[in-house]
Amino acid sequence: MPSSFNPTVRTLMGPGPSDVNPRILGAMAKPTIGHLDPEFIRLMDEIKGMLQYAYRTKNELTIPVSAPGSAGMETCFVNLVEAGDKVIVCENGVFGGRMADNVRRLGGVVVHVEQQWGRAVDLDAVADALKNNPDAKIVAFVHAETSTGARSDAKGICDLARQSDCLTIVDCVTSLAGCDVNLDDWQADAAYSGTQKCLSCAPGLSPISFSDKALEVVKNRKTPVTSWFLDLNLVMGYWGEGQTRAYHHTAPVNALYGLHEALVVLQEEGLEASWQRHTTNHMALRAGIEAMGMSFVVPEDERLAQLNTVTIPEGVNEAAVRKQLLQQFNLEIGAGLGALAGKVWRIGLMGYASNPKNVLLCVNALEAVLSQYNAPINKGVATAAVQASYS
Amino acid sequence: MPSSFNPTVRTLMGPGPSDVNPRILGAMAKPTIGHLDPEFIRLMDEIKGMLQYAYRTKNELTIPVSAPGSAGMETCFVNLVEAGDKVIVCENGVFGGRMADNVRRLGGVVVHVEQQWGRAVDLDAVADALKNNPDAKIVAFVHAETSTGARSDAKGICDLARQSDCLTIVDCVTSLAGCDVNLDDWQADAAYSGTQKCLSCAPGLSPISFSDKALEVVKNRKTPVTSWFLDLNLVMGYWGEGQTRAYHHTAPVNALYGLHEALVVLQEEGLEASWQRHTTNHMALRAGIEAMGMSFVVPEDERLAQLNTVTIPEGVNEAAVRKQLLQQFNLEIGAGLGALAGKVWRIGLMGYASNPKNVLLCVNALEAVLSQYNAPINKGVATAAVQASYS
Repeated sequence: MPSSFNPTVRTLMGPGPSDVNPRILGAMAKPTIGHLDPEFIRLMDEIKGMLQYAYRTKNELTIPVSAPGSAGMETCFVNLVEAGDKVIVCENGVFGGRMADNVRRLGGVVVHVEQQWGRAVDLDAVADALKNNPDAKIVAFVHAETSTGARSDAKGICDLARQSDCLTIVDCVTSLAGCDVNLDDWQADAAYSGTQKCLSCAPGLSPISFSDKALEVVKNRKTPVTSWFLDLNLVMGYWGEGQTRAYHHTAPVNALYGLHEALVVLQEEGLEASWQRHTTNHMALRAGIEAMGMSFVVPEDERLAQLNTVTIPEGVNEAAVRKQLLQQFNLEIGAGLGALAGKVWRIGLMGYASNPKNVLLCVNALEAVLSQYNAPINKGVATAAVQASYS
Repeated sequence: MPSSFNPTVRTLMGPGPSDVNPRILGAMAKPTIGHLDPEFIRLMDEIKGMLQYAYRTKNELTIPVSAPGSAGMETCFVNLVEAGDKVIVCENGVFGGRMADNVRRLGGVVVHVEQQWGRAVDLDAVADALKNNPDAKIVAFVHAETSTGARSDAKGICDLARQSDCLTIVDCVTSLAGCDVNLDDWQADAAYSGTQKCLSCAPGLSPISFSDKALEVVKNRKTPVTSWFLDLNLVMGYWGEGQTRAYHHTAPVNALYGLHEALVVLQEEGLEASWQRHTTNHMALRAGIEAMGMSFVVPEDERLAQLNTVTIPEGVNEAAVRKQLLQQFNLEIGAGLGALAGKVWRIGLMGYASNPKNVLLCVNALEAVLSQYNAPINKGVATAAVQASYS
């Protein structure tokens, strides 16, 4: 008979989940109240307001979906795409591919804009696709590709889409709170994120935001949304304005306690300060990684601070190194995904986990394990490089 | 700027969420580990095994969906129903109606078997529907109707369906761990539940179970599952056997800690002991309620122990009473839903919350508040009636 589970305390520097702030762990353990309790309604209102802050938007429909980021993605597609709709999907990693899969399952027509993995989406290619597909309804892209560490020009893509009367769906899973997300400046129409990246929450919720224009499209669909659970026409009856909320599904009360606390933490630090912290720690990690002689997959000006995709030194069994890091130092870093599987490590510096202690641990633990495997790296120089970066 | 949220401690005796065992709250606050961590794989395996125990099934596909019960419902329908499929839906409350909505959104054809709210599904009506619809593929019904408190004969309905070569989908949201759920004895094909009822977890997960026969149907669909997030062909790559799990979505790690602990608690008590405890406390609540002169909506032999639907004394403003119970005693009971809105209260005695302390609190708090409103009830007799029931 299984007994209570007591996880080993890890340091989470993979592609997410990232380390959860103990304040947030504590919040999730507070006593559960009813999902229609007046106190809970207040909590929901505060979450909506703070998510608007995090997304930099005035969109009324800015709420957490009661399921992980993948369900947030699906919420955007299932509400906005009807059978026959043409959707331009920018693919520069795993998550663009997943968007295309969403569209196909809904009977939509996918126009692929392919880009080399590890690079930002090419604006010229998007412009060409729009020109060649005047009947396209939506342009979908990933702001921060978690599978490659590349950041795309969200404002640029949204501008192009709008000029062609297309709606935009933006994956902000890894970017929200970690770098410059600004929905209103971009004039993006639908965005989704996850709680387990730069918000430092446990995984399980997906903050989304829909512009009024996008919401009008949802309200005026010709066919019903195929998903009852994710139909925003119903969800908004519960998350909408006023004290009377119509029961839809039972909200994940304690997970929302966690998200609320994460957003309080974010407001205390300040959004720009959070972005800056991610950059500062990324620069220090980079200094240490490069001092050892390893390099980054993504060109400097397209690189994410919160997700670092690093090449593996020649002759090294990458899985063995990750296993050793986990066993010896309780440090988790991520493997490559899709086209980059076996070729890179993904080192996350997200939210609460983006701090000097973690940078130093990661660089030195890598040096220790790679030395043990006789990997061709420069030894004894990483710590000083990290420290110099912070000075 | 919002500050940290500190909920008032409530006693949750509505239709769910029910009070969460502090052991489970504590489990959810344990440090997050990665969703591909070897320790997490072990946790997942233990959860699967313990869910098989709770559902009394050997079904390999017995896992928690990473979202609330409504998403578990949708998982069953979206995987088993294709456009044009005919589904017999038994409706004796809100949740049967929701099943029908699921079927329609997927392009399925609904055959309604309607039953008065507050009563079990009528087996003769199911038999008639099967006879009149030899092309039906699925029979769907709710074992324990949370909106009315009625328990239906799951084994009887499953037998009828099987005799007509129909699959069965069973809503066990409020029944799992609270009364006689036995999937293998019923030979049910797909079932779903929630964590926030008799498992005493926080809301947010939905344990499901699919028979091998149902899984074959999913694997041999003519069209792709419209939901990427809920497609069991993909989900099983992560939740399936072996140490190598394919990344699908990021599992809600801390919520799963909570479910694991809830299932450990259930095994410690024993399934039959848990069912018996629900019955014992229901009988005591009933004694107190009836002593005051109120009555139950559901006939005795169709009544759920964990969800008590009670008539409102004449002339009483039911919403005012609930508000007062919440404000004065921090006690939450539920309102009527759908056809029973304004006509009943729903008093939950679920999981951890099913205990003598709560029964006594509920009966006496109701007496106190109803007395204040000069409701026509018998006073001063409820406590003794409760105590006599326990003797």
